[in-house]
Amino acid sequence: MTDTLALAREAVAAAQSYTSAIRTSLNARLVSDGRIDMAEAERQQRRLHGFAWTATLADALAALVDWAARAEAAGQFGAIETRVLEIGMGDYCAQIAGGVAMSQSEVVRPAEYGLLTEARAFEDEPSLRHFLAEGNAPEARADLAQRLAAGERPFEGTGDETLDMIRDQFRAFAADRIAPHAHEWHLADALIPLPVVEEMAELGVFGVCIAEEYGGLGLGKQAMCLVSEELSRGWICAGSLGTRSEIAGELIGENGTEAQKAKFLPRIADGSVLPTAVFTEPDTGSDLASVRTRATRQADDSWRIDGAKTWITHAARADLMTVLCRTNPTTPGYGGLSMMLAEKTRGTDKHPFPDGGIDGSEIEVLGYRGMKEYALGFDGFRVAAGGLLGGAEGQGFKQLMRTFEGARIQTAARAVGVGWNAFDLGLKYACERKQFGKPLLAFPRVSDKLAMMACELVMARELTWSAARQKDRGERCDIEAGMAKLLAARVAWASADNALQIHGGNGYALEYEISRVLCDARILNIFEGAGEIQAHVIGRGLLSPGRAKRD
Amino acid sequence: MTDTLALAREAVAAAQSYTSAIRTSLNARLVSDGRIDMAEAERQQRRLHGFAWTATLADALAALVDWAARAEAAGQFGAIETRVLEIGMGDYCAQIAGGVAMSQSEVVRPAEYGLLTEARAFEDEPSLRHFLAEGNAPEARADLAQRLAAGERPFEGTGDETLDMIRDQFRAFAADRIAPHAHEWHLADALIPLPVVEEMAELGVFGVCIAEEYGGLGLGKQAMCLVSEELSRGWICAGSLGTRSEIAGELIGENGTEAQKAKFLPRIADGSVLPTAVFTEPDTGSDLASVRTRATRQADDSWRIDGAKTWITHAARADLMTVLCRTNPTTPGYGGLSMMLAEKTRGTDKHPFPDGGIDGSEIEVLGYRGMKEYALGFDGFRVAAGGLLGGAEGQGFKQLMRTFEGARIQTAARAVGVGWNAFDLGLKYACERKQFGKPLLAFPRVSDKLAMMACELVMARELTWSAARQKDRGERCDIEAGMAKLLAARVAWASADNALQIHGGNGYALEYEISRVLCDARILNIFEGAGEIQAHVIGRGLLSPGRAKRD
Ligand SMILES: Cc1cc2nc3c(=O)[nH]c(=O)nc-3n(C[C@H](O)[C@H](O)[C@H](O)COP(=O)(O)OP(=O)(O)OC[C@H]3O[C@@H](n4cnc5c(N)ncnc54)[C@H](O)[C@@H]3O)c2cc1C
Ligand SMILES: Cc1cc2nc3c(=O)[nH]c(=O)nc-3n(C[C@H](O)[C@H](O)[C@H](O)COP(=O)(O)OP(=O)(O)OC[C@H]3O[C@@H](n4cnc5c(N)ncnc54)[C@H](O)[C@@H]3O)c2cc1C
Ligand SMILES: CC(C)(COP(=O)(O)OP(=O)(O)OC[C@H]1O[C@@H](n2cnc3c(N)ncnc32)[C@H](O)[C@@H]1OP(=O)(O)O)[C@@H](O)C(=O)NCCC(=O)NCCS
Ligand SMILES: CC(C)(COP(=O)(O)OP(=O)(O)OC[C@H]1O[C@@H](n2cnc3c(N)ncnc32)[C@H](O)[C@@H]1OP(=O)(O)O)[C@@H](O)C(=O)NCCC(=O)NCCS
Repeated sequence: MTDTLALAREAVAAAQSYTSAIRTSLNARLVSDGRIDMAEAERQQRRLHGFAWTATLADALAALVDWAARAEAAGQFGAIETRVLEIGMGDYCAQIAGGVAMSQSEVVRPAEYGLLTEARAFEDEPSLRHFLAEGNAPEARADLAQRLAAGERPFEGTGDETLDMIRDQFRAFAADRIAPHAHEWHLADALIPLPVVEEMAELGVFGVCIAEEYGGLGLGKQAMCLVSEELSRGWICAGSLGTRSEIAGELIGENGTEAQKAKFLPRIADGSVLPTAVFTEPDTGSDLASVRTRATRQADDSWRIDGAKTWITHAARADLMTVLCRTNPTTPGYGGLSMMLAEKTRGTDKHPFPDGGIDGSEIEVLGYRGMKEYALGFDGFRVAAGGLLGGAEGQGFKQLMRTFEGARIQTAARAVGVGWNAFDLGLKYACERKQFGKPLLAFPRVSDKLAMMACELVMARELTWSAARQKDRGERCDIEAGMAKLLAARVAWASADNALQIHGGNGYALEYEISRVLCDARILNIFEGAGEIQAHVIGRGLLSPGRAKRD
Repeated sequence: MTDTLALAREAVAAAQSYTSAIRTSLNARLVSDGRIDMAEAERQQRRLHGFAWTATLADALAALVDWAARAEAAGQFGAIETRVLEIGMGDYCAQIAGGVAMSQSEVVRPAEYGLLTEARAFEDEPSLRHFLAEGNAPEARADLAQRLAAGERPFEGTGDETLDMIRDQFRAFAADRIAPHAHEWHLADALIPLPVVEEMAELGVFGVCIAEEYGGLGLGKQAMCLVSEELSRGWICAGSLGTRSEIAGELIGENGTEAQKAKFLPRIADGSVLPTAVFTEPDTGSDLASVRTRATRQADDSWRIDGAKTWITHAARADLMTVLCRTNPTTPGYGGLSMMLAEKTRGTDKHPFPDGGIDGSEIEVLGYRGMKEYALGFDGFRVAAGGLLGGAEGQGFKQLMRTFEGARIQTAARAVGVGWNAFDLGLKYACERKQFGKPLLAFPRVSDKLAMMACELVMARELTWSAARQKDRGERCDIEAGMAKLLAARVAWASADNALQIHGGNGYALEYEISRVLCDARILNIFEGAGEIQAHVIGRGLLSPGRAKRD
């Protein structure tokens, strides 16, 4: 093992130095006088995004090595971990050298950076040769699949007993209370039942990262990742209920006035206030700095909100809206934006939006059901005085962007959970279904799919945790959060796609859960910042002189 | 242009010789004494399938060059054709050299065949260098996207006036009669209305390949491709109604007794008999040689059918079933199978299966709606004397396999149509939707997606037509039909996935058509032989000594 780990470290170093070569080439193309030429960066967007993707894979490999080292330190680096390390290294190194898929038909390759020679040198590194030829060999993948089928699972310890316990607790809860009903709730397009939400509240789901003084668990982002992953493994909706509390909790916890914290945080933490995140508008999704919904201060210091929002998850049943509004109509761009804390009356099936000045209609969706999405119209909706977050105008966008780091890490964790859900279903089917006289698992095209899922899910999870730890250190981590979200969304989608394929025709039947998981997985590359936006954030961040730890 | 075409020919030759190198390496691994070691081939399935995929891409490039030459001969090789040729060549050559995606997480690479040196030599060919560096440059893709947005379309002439007219006719029909309603029919999970089916019948959809003496149009498979593609561009269901008539028509036309032909073909051709294809069973999908449903000859020479079938499309409304049955229970495998022509009474919503001895229940599905799928139970269902296809027992499997060639070509054409549907929707949205003050189309990550769709759809279409022409020449073409289906299904899926991504959040709303197209596209890699089965057929065929034109 120690040998493999040493080789893996060499390979990671080589991947990072190849990534640096891309960066150097892009620096020459896009940066002058220490500033990125954004117009040129946009023209060369594919190169910039390809760089973001390549760096993401390189970081995923580094995270995999950290994982292996942690497993070794715990005395738990066994045969299955060796397989995961070797196959993961082999495949992602090969992607870096041969082509990185940013989508199913956008594969970025070394020649596009004029780096064919460097890429070949990378591929010819002895460590790479090991992983490509022996590490990721057919026999290795078949062995990994056999072990998975026998119930072995790669090391998932956090190195922290409390965190490991939290994971176990939520895994059990999801298996017991969520998974058996998720599909039925999905098919009925029903709201997740309130009693289940209340059980989750009792477990502390809504206050994981809220400080103990405000009634939360006071835990870090990695704990939030564990909770989100395990709940999402049961159903994406279960893992997503907490997203809005996380966003509101962090917005208020980081930026709120003392009065706002005291008023809202305890009730968010105990689940008595369910928040909803109200940012997107019909004409404005990715370009959030351009939102137009107005918040106007009234004579009595209350506010009125006017405008249209859309795609607002869980809006009807929510008690509190965090609304991104323009308070200064003469300042275009992000400087004129503020965040409003707008209380509302919880709606019912019959009266989804009982308050005056707000109306909403449901948007029917492919997946991600259980909370429902709404298009909202605000027409003089009243927000009580004191509803301006932090009491400061013009800060809304940056408040939100910092909060998105946590939300994207949380979304990455949801993606990892969805991916495991796909894996679980695919593995089970592959073991049970027989064709040509054998379980499907006996066919390399089937076992390869499952082996890759396991390896990629370990990498995506570790990359997510690593971003979470950075966030917990209080460092800006939009690059790392973006990487985690970018990769995890791809992995979840690929896993769902392949697990469905393993189901053959049955995968296409609404009756089989994998048909839902495919639909659920598709959202992950769109919301919380689409994949193209993450690649933009990562690429720009990595090129920005003096921005990252990477300098 | 002539220069580009000459370079393209060089690149194709290089791709083919690289493909031959894979074949040689696999020959050494898998073939001895002129026979493929099937057990070893299964252990090395990924290598074998990777070979199939690589050869498919190489053939797609060859088909692209034929297309360019045809356009040139027609005096229609203009700027947009140059772009498609150069980008298509560039991307698929790069895939061959750097990695071919058999699924989102199974990428096969040269090193797996010990062919890194050969792959690099391929990549270093001057023709390749041209296509990789200049041909498929960002500016080229942006220009292609601009032209597409301006309404230009790459050459699609067949070189045959009648065929071109047929295409125009069906394009107009689909745009007029199908596309405006498809989404509503899909959302309602309704059967496509009978009057529409009747209009299609009048246009000859159900008799395209049936001989004129039996009331058909007597056209070849390429005509069928045109019809299927255009109808599917409106809705996959419209392009799939004819699939069953095509299967039954060919089964009977090629194998039927004179009485069977006279009885069924004219009624299939005029649409008064809607057939359904009854092959799959609950325990038997890919391994069709193992079906167990029994057909037993009765004293009066009629037959009784007993057993369970599943996934039977359009079963309720069909008048004729082509049922793959075991007539000889003591012969396991394909030798004991026969094809039955089993008439049934057309069902209604209230009484979907009015006959005795047959029962059915609907299987709800993600997409591919409009005909409905059913699980069928046969319990002494009676088939009149004379129902055995060709009057010959034990021939069912081979009759079907030969027919599958046409069905797979037809399915490839459906996939191409679905892909264009995605393209149409994605392009329209990208032109209309603005973000960051510009139409989405202005962003390379958006325009790249559309440019690749157009290039891949041209390649997939041409590969499909090339298989169709081979079938029309009366040659066995399971390899070529498999290639067309394999590639077209991937292209349709990637196109739908990317067109949905271009829609951002709206792509996830049931209200937007692209959400349907994504679901529709997912079936193509499963039915009519899953992708893994096509790769198996292609790989085995290409390795079989003396099998293909390729020897
Ligand atoms: C199920 C669901 C739930 C949601 N829940 C919420 C919620 O609770 N609250 C909320 O505020 N929002 C929510 N959203 C909205 C979500 O955040 C947005 O859909 C997302 O931010 C993308 O914005 P858009 O849909 O407007 O896409 P657009 O911004 O129009 O983007 C369309 C496409 O263009 C690409 N694109 C855009 N700009 C560029 C560029 N400069 N370069 C390259 N490519 C570009 C995008 O990546 C995307 O592929 C939800 C959406 C969905 C589908
Ligand atoms: C919407 C729909 C409509 C359909 N319509 C019809 C119809 O009208 N008539 C009809 O007869 N059938 C129909 N089918 C059935 C369809 O043809 C089968 O689903 C298909 O042949 C696959 O069989 P299966 O579902 O049993 O999958 P399985 O054979 O169980 O395969 C499951 C997975 O294992 C893989 N696999 C299987 N064997 C191997 C191997 N040896 N090596 C590697 N991988 C392997 C497959 O590729 C697949 O990914 C329909 C199916 C659907 C979903
Ligand atoms: C596209 C996008 C990244 C912003 O791009 P932009 O308009 O170019 O804005 P910038 O990234 O330049 O950021 C504006 C300011 O915020 C700052 N900022 C951005 N992210 C930050 C972060 N994570 N931490 C601290 N500051 C941040 C920038 O440094 C910049 O400050 P400056 O002007 O003082 O230098 C942003 O709109 C986005 O994330 N869109 C996706 C929307 C989304 O996720 N929606 C989900 C809704 S649920
Ligand atoms: C897997 C599959 C390819 C068959 O594999 P198999 O059981 O190994 O059978 P083989 O390919 O060896 O074929 C058996 C015989 O048929 C012959 N055959 C197969 N395809 C043929 C073709 N296209 N033309 C002529 N003969 C053919 C073979 O040559 C062989 O003959 P032989 O024994 O005389 O040499 C087949 O079951 C299949 O296509 N499955 C997918 C099912 C499907 O498409 N379902 C869709 C339902 S809508």
